[in-house]
Amino acid sequence: MPVSLDWMIKHLNIELIITNSYILKNSKYKDEILKKGLHKFFGFDGVIYTDSGTFQMYSQGRANISNEETIAFQKAIGSDIITPLDLFTLPSDDKKTARLKLEKSFERSSLLEKMHESYSLPLQGGLYVDLRKKAALLANKYEPAVYAIGGIVPLMESYDFLNLVKVVYAVKSLLKPNVPVHAFGAGHPLVLPLLVLLGVDVFDSASYALYAYDRRMICPHRTYNVDELEYFPCSCRYCEAEIPKDLTTEELAKHNLTVIFEELESIKEAIHEGTLYEYVEYKLGARPELVKAYRWIMRSANKWLQSYEPMSRKRGFLTRDESFKRPLVKHTKNRLSYVKSSCQEVESFMGKIPLSLALSYPFSQVSTYKHEYSWYAESIYFMNKEPLSFIKDVLAYQFRDDFSYKVKWENVKFIYSKTTKRLREVRYKNKVMLTLRSYDNLFVPRDEFYYFLKSQNINFPYKVKVFKEAEPFVKSGRNVFAKFVKDVKGAFQPQDFIAILSEDGRDFLGWGQALLSHKEIPYFKRGVAVKRK
Amino acid sequence: MPVSLDWMIKHLNIELIITNSYILKNSKYKDEILKKGLHKFFGFDGVIYTDSGTFQMYSQGRANISNEETIAFQKAIGSDIITPLDLFTLPSDDKKTARLKLEKSFERSSLLEKMHESYSLPLQGGLYVDLRKKAALLANKYEPAVYAIGGIVPLMESYDFLNLVKVVYAVKSLLKPNVPVHAFGAGHPLVLPLLVLLGVDVFDSASYALYAYDRRMICPHRTYNVDELEYFPCSCRYCEAEIPKDLTTEELAKHNLTVIFEELESIKEAIHEGTLYEYVEYKLGARPELVKAYRWIMRSANKWLQSYEPMSRKRGFLTRDESFKRPLVKHTKNRLSYVKSSCQEVESFMGKIPLSLALSYPFSQVSTYKHEYSWYAESIYFMNKEPLSFIKDVLAYQFRDDFSYKVKWENVKFIYSKTTKRLREVRYKNKVMLTLRSYDNLFVPRDEFYYFLKSQNINFPYKVKVFKEAEPFVKSGRNVFAKFVKDVKGAFQPQDFIAILSEDGRDFLGWGQALLSHKEIPYFKRGVAVKRK
Repeated sequence: MPVSLDWMIKHLNIELIITNSYILKNSKYKDEILKKGLHKFFGFDGVIYTDSGTFQMYSQGRANISNEETIAFQKAIGSDIITPLDLFTLPSDDKKTARLKLEKSFERSSLLEKMHESYSLPLQGGLYVDLRKKAALLANKYEPAVYAIGGIVPLMESYDFLNLVKVVYAVKSLLKPNVPVHAFGAGHPLVLPLLVLLGVDVFDSASYALYAYDRRMICPHRTYNVDELEYFPCSCRYCEAEIPKDLTTEELAKHNLTVIFEELESIKEAIHEGTLYEYVEYKLGARPELVKAYRWIMRSANKWLQSYEPMSRKRGFLTRDESFKRPLVKHTKNRLSYVKSSCQEVESFMGKIPLSLALSYPFSQVSTYKHEYSWYAESIYFMNKEPLSFIKDVLAYQFRDDFSYKVKWENVKFIYSKTTKRLREVRYKNKVMLTLRSYDNLFVPRDEFYYFLKSQNINFPYKVKVFKEAEPFVKSGRNVFAKFVKDVKGAFQPQDFIAILSEDGRDFLGWGQALLSHKEIPYFKRGVAVKRK
Repeated sequence: MPVSLDWMIKHLNIELIITNSYILKNSKYKDEILKKGLHKFFGFDGVIYTDSGTFQMYSQGRANISNEETIAFQKAIGSDIITPLDLFTLPSDDKKTARLKLEKSFERSSLLEKMHESYSLPLQGGLYVDLRKKAALLANKYEPAVYAIGGIVPLMESYDFLNLVKVVYAVKSLLKPNVPVHAFGAGHPLVLPLLVLLGVDVFDSASYALYAYDRRMICPHRTYNVDELEYFPCSCRYCEAEIPKDLTTEELAKHNLTVIFEELESIKEAIHEGTLYEYVEYKLGARPELVKAYRWIMRSANKWLQSYEPMSRKRGFLTRDESFKRPLVKHTKNRLSYVKSSCQEVESFMGKIPLSLALSYPFSQVSTYKHEYSWYAESIYFMNKEPLSFIKDVLAYQFRDDFSYKVKWENVKFIYSKTTKRLREVRYKNKVMLTLRSYDNLFVPRDEFYYFLKSQNINFPYKVKVFKEAEPFVKSGRNVFAKFVKDVKGAFQPQDFIAILSEDGRDFLGWGQALLSHKEIPYFKRGVAVKRK
């Protein structure tokens, strides 16, 4: 290894290491590891995940070990996540072989399930989408620590990203959402953004070292042959050599690892900021195979991705023709179908929309290379002049329901900002009921709004009921953990405002914002489902 | 200044520094600089280029200096490139004002021209393309060290890249090609690739420092507010802090500078490798305004860019819908118009093409996200079976001429590779005349080919004549310097093979490959025009 684990622990933000038990078992350190245990041997107190000899069977032709042996060894050395000896499926395997390997792999995993171990469940199936789906459905009956999508390294090696995303999507879209998903052997900055978009959580790769031995330099958008470089397109800590040619294998390996981790940080920052699609599309420009894969996703995985589409983001950029196929666009079309506006229509990047919605997300937040608008002043004028029409339309759009058109808006008062002169609040009998959020022109509801609707027997569409034991916590303003959610109503999505009700559904406990979609909450046993304020 | 010049000289690959004489003149160091001279004062023996107070007049409203004063001061301190006090034109200036400022700026530059100084000629004109063109045509009568496009900082600050490229193109496409062009104040990694594509050579920017004071972190594809970052999307030498928030102004400034220089290195590497369009298109994904600007370039600057399109590249990626509008595509269509093939047609990324050309650049070198081909075996079969049809078509395509169809191909023999079984050489009376280059399936001509054509009174279309004094050097295999080229014939482009003839045009001296297009060579007084072998 060109880089020591000590160095990695010290210099990289590593949360988990994956190491190969087959290699350890055949190394001179075997006895020492058995005696000390993995954690002490490596001096790492994070999670240690061990792989079996499967990949070696593929890359070296054979591995001299049985499923029982590798499991016993991984257990003996104190692995936190054990991997069975599954059967690596090649892209060239025929369907019968792929099916047999899939079934055999499950058989081998069953042993770990029976042992109640913390383990990784490898999912094979080759290039056969129906087998991959079958694997996912079977996998949902197991309780592993992680699902691992196997047999994809040859696809990444040959830049066959189209088949890679087909396989990953087939599996991930059917798996229970509460178990993390690992893409075995994925680590190049080129594919990481796409895989994250498809919901992959865990990555591992030895490419940093293998590429370094091969004199290949991983950069965010491509790989260079370091000896062919005339200039020095990197300034990382390990690229201090005078010219690229002078980089040692160790420096190159450190560089490669650093770039991979920087990529993960960039992706996390994009998720944090709400710009993952922007980031993914930026990186598409690096290879035509990525475009091919993304176009497939926009076509075939769109509906699934729509269910994770948040209600709003601070901003958005559409920079490619493919951008107009984003789940955002299709999801927004769906939201628009609930609006029964009678106001004038204006042109948006998605075609004609009611003027009442022109300032709401995404119409005035998203910028494209094709469109420029001149309705800002006009839509502010409309909002201030006809607040009720405006409110009805925005609520229908925001909550995908027609309740706003049924409500009797009596004793309601509109408050305007003194500085911006724009509508700011809706009050009922002088109590604030709705606040208009400035950055996306959508409403933040207050408790009074729920009572106002209830007094007219109007049903608010997005609701969760919480178990009795959680009621006092919710009342005091605490977040709602997924395991305390008894019941979910309405097709709400991340960031949507939802009413939190008591177990019997009679008492309103407060408003919250969904962190998960309505589809995910029932699966999760840990973590926050609904955020307060 | 958050970063010292000593640090910059030590850590960055700086070839030239630009410093502001107005600020120096008003600093406490004025007398010291006057006494020691700029180079000694800064301890820098590279080129020092001084700016006048123009930008300060714009950004601070006024500068208390005359044209004569600033020129005298810059001369006194030993500046290598002096800038007159031109008049900064605002995007909001009306046309009359812009024209007056332009004319006044030229008047002020004239003083330096008369003094025979090494100076920078600032070109103004605001957003008025016709004034920018007028400026370029006027500028061609001057002999400055560098042309400087002024008044563009406000465009970059407001992400108005569309007007930026309109202005830069208007100027650059009309300027003499032998004088370097400087884009005043351009330095963000977002715009550098586009500006290089349009032919800008010199950049300067104080943004590294200004942004650092403002807590803004420049990254290759965007700017982050460093205090809002949750993750750390950089691993440069100066990003060693635990979290981004902890970066000091000095570290941030060093980071910003490092990223800007890394961007320049990446661009240079792309030029070196022949993948500048790929790189520019990759970066387009960062902002819709870049896409807007690029689409305009592909539409309006395409013909001009085509004249710089090299005959061949090792590979190419088309990753956006915009890619299909590249000069490459239009230029290739032009090449195809010379082919009078009677062979079968096949589908390429550009539509139908003769099978005889399917292996030639760019048809089998360029990969896209839309196309996959199956004619490889078929086209090799055709080439081997009907070599003469193949040769005629490729030569017509390669040299944009119909001479290959007029030649009597008698006493000609085709040689096939023993290993690849593919056509490799064309011989005439057993002497090698043409070699087929494997990576792009185009021909490399040998001396014998010229004599073969001459014996049939066939005119080879691409030629240069060199002055008598250079003839012996060319005969001995040396490169041809631009200043020794007497005459240029044919619309050849970079990398095209051209026949080098004696001054009187009677003797063939050898083949060479153009490094410049036929349009550029007459202007250059320095550097190699035609490369040998």
